[in-house]
Amino acid sequence: MPTISKKGDLMPASPIRKLVPYAEKAREKGIKVYQLNIGQPDIKTPEVALEAVRNMTHQVIEYSHSAGNESYRRKLAKFYQGIGIDVDHTEMLVTTGGSEAISFTLMSTVNPDEEVIVPEPFYANYNGFSVAAGVKVVPITASIENGFALPPIEEFEKVITPRTRGIIICNPNNPTGYLYSKKELEMLGEIVKKHDLYLFSDEVYREFCYDGEKHFSAMGLKGLEQHVVMFDSVSKRYSMCGVRVGTLVTKNREVIATALKFAQARLSPPSYGQVAGEAALDTPPSYFEEVYAEYIERRNYMVEALNRMPGVICPTPKGAFYTVVHLPVDDTDRFAKWILSEFSYQNQTVMMAPASGFYSTPGLGKQEVRIAYVLKKDDLALAMETLAEALKAYPGRTK
Amino acid sequence: MPTISKKGDLMPASPIRKLVPYAEKAREKGIKVYQLNIGQPDIKTPEVALEAVRNMTHQVIEYSHSAGNESYRRKLAKFYQGIGIDVDHTEMLVTTGGSEAISFTLMSTVNPDEEVIVPEPFYANYNGFSVAAGVKVVPITASIENGFALPPIEEFEKVITPRTRGIIICNPNNPTGYLYSKKELEMLGEIVKKHDLYLFSDEVYREFCYDGEKHFSAMGLKGLEQHVVMFDSVSKRYSMCGVRVGTLVTKNREVIATALKFAQARLSPPSYGQVAGEAALDTPPSYFEEVYAEYIERRNYMVEALNRMPGVICPTPKGAFYTVVHLPVDDTDRFAKWILSEFSYQNQTVMMAPASGFYSTPGLGKQEVRIAYVLKKDDLALAMETLAEALKAYPGRTK
Repeated sequence: MPTISKKGDLMPASPIRKLVPYAEKAREKGIKVYQLNIGQPDIKTPEVALEAVRNMTHQVIEYSHSAGNESYRRKLAKFYQGIGIDVDHTEMLVTTGGSEAISFTLMSTVNPDEEVIVPEPFYANYNGFSVAAGVKVVPITASIENGFALPPIEEFEKVITPRTRGIIICNPNNPTGYLYSKKELEMLGEIVKKHDLYLFSDEVYREFCYDGEKHFSAMGLKGLEQHVVMFDSVSKRYSMCGVRVGTLVTKNREVIATALKFAQARLSPPSYGQVAGEAALDTPPSYFEEVYAEYIERRNYMVEALNRMPGVICPTPKGAFYTVVHLPVDDTDRFAKWILSEFSYQNQTVMMAPASGFYSTPGLGKQEVRIAYVLKKDDLALAMETLAEALKAYPGRTK
Repeated sequence: MPTISKKGDLMPASPIRKLVPYAEKAREKGIKVYQLNIGQPDIKTPEVALEAVRNMTHQVIEYSHSAGNESYRRKLAKFYQGIGIDVDHTEMLVTTGGSEAISFTLMSTVNPDEEVIVPEPFYANYNGFSVAAGVKVVPITASIENGFALPPIEEFEKVITPRTRGIIICNPNNPTGYLYSKKELEMLGEIVKKHDLYLFSDEVYREFCYDGEKHFSAMGLKGLEQHVVMFDSVSKRYSMCGVRVGTLVTKNREVIATALKFAQARLSPPSYGQVAGEAALDTPPSYFEEVYAEYIERRNYMVEALNRMPGVICPTPKGAFYTVVHLPVDDTDRFAKWILSEFSYQNQTVMMAPASGFYSTPGLGKQEVRIAYVLKKDDLALAMETLAEALKAYPGRTK
């Protein structure tokens, strides 16, 4: 029997999805499972996007351009210009989700065994895409104590070697909810320039910034036009994760031309999703105001509820819809399984993502989970109540 | 300015898509371009699939299961069982097009710098996916003289080394239209078993077999259940290339489990496309009868028209909707550009895929093009007339 590859062995199971079988078993027992593990919002997709797909009169669902429909890219360029990102439709590729923007970029710019620096905890799938591309992730640890701010520049300098090719940031951050300031971005820009690196900036949560804070895009860093590659996606902005449409954006034409070759090999991004994405650009501002109000309410409620639980520490996230929370337990991998398979409270339980999967340094995140506040407040309240009870009952509780 | 990767340099431009800018220029001049370069059929997508998407009442377009919707996989399993492929819904992953099935499989089973053997000419994107995975393609040359039949077993034995991990076949074949017989498959099966290799079988054109020939799936090879991985797609079967839905099918559970990790990293296949794919399984038999009649007519017309042109040789393809044709020209890369940029006949021209991109051995395919007979007979007739005139006018004509 032929064996599987080393890459296949190395490929991490998704920390977000690996508990799915435990949740399925809980559901089979009739237990209601609140899913706080995954960034799947319950917010409605804008009607304008749903309607555009329902009203399609195409007789043949054809391949699109490998870079994405030109009409969509032109409209997207206007959208970006409107938020101060100066690009035209030739400076982007429409990708199959933000995921593909990340894969194409890594494969186009980083050689196998070369390194990218990523502040941890980080979006776990950066690990997966790096393994697939043969790229090595070098973590720099951010700390829950200062709300997961960007680690000081010296920490980056310490790990930069001749093999370093770039830095990946996610802003606002998944999983921590941290929003990098313009000053932090400029600091990063300086290292990037000094060492002639790429700056890969995942900005798929751009629209989710709270408390009056403004998002500063890495695309706005002066003099770094050839260094910055931005990843974007319609998944979270319009709550339509399933359409699988994202964007790779850069002023670096060589990167665009190279990524396009990878894009041509896979033919084209999804046609239905592109119709939804193009139409969604006409979503009325009232939609975002409602969504904003909803998330702020959820966040405030959740942060307060969590910090009220003895031994729990939850910084206030300034963006996205996640938070990394310290729990008073021995091992959150064990706790997250236990709460699904051995615990229930009023026939309910909670699914969370153990934070170990968001760290690259072994042993870190063992007392942390990522919680996505993607549920209605009523559900969130029941989920918090259940979690509080679980923490009381868990045999591996620490102080 | 940071540089691009070696992989990015190595990545081939798509032979199918690299002429797109020339076609665009021709169109700007008001010239009608017949697209015979790409397998984009003009056949209607089944109404049942279009309607399922139009009638969707989902309020949120959510991520699906990373392996694809279970309801879809269960229905697909029944479909496969119905055509003699004995699999259940846990022995497959729904992928983003057949493309992703190929990438996931190569990454899961073949180490960088290991080798896969592929009879050439072959589907050009196998090159792209291999470069992305760091895998080396080792070609074995099939010849136009015997209609591109499977090369003799000795040719395989000659190139098998300790680094060989598998063989990729496409059956019916893109680009040649050749349909492998059961006997050829069994011969392949023997080598695969003897050397403990994988057999990767791309069967996306399964439904397109002509002249009463029956398709024999590699999944039916006895004793090779752990060796065979099948790639499938809804793109051609239902003429809906743009939905981007395919399948990776294998009885090898380790391969499924490994590929699922890659699938989890990219989250999920497109939700709209899966709805279309699931509904398409109810396409009435009359649809396929009409499509079959249409393609047979196109094929017969085209093969005859081509062979009537002096110096042109076109074997009769037994499957798919492509043919690799010998043209009496110095270099088909040059000819294919010339016909788009310097030639027109009654304000029309033709786009074809130079065959060099379908060969891995340098220098081969210089007098061949791949033609996809994906246009209505009237259009095909005009395209053939235009091609015949072009061959007369082309300055680089050989005998």
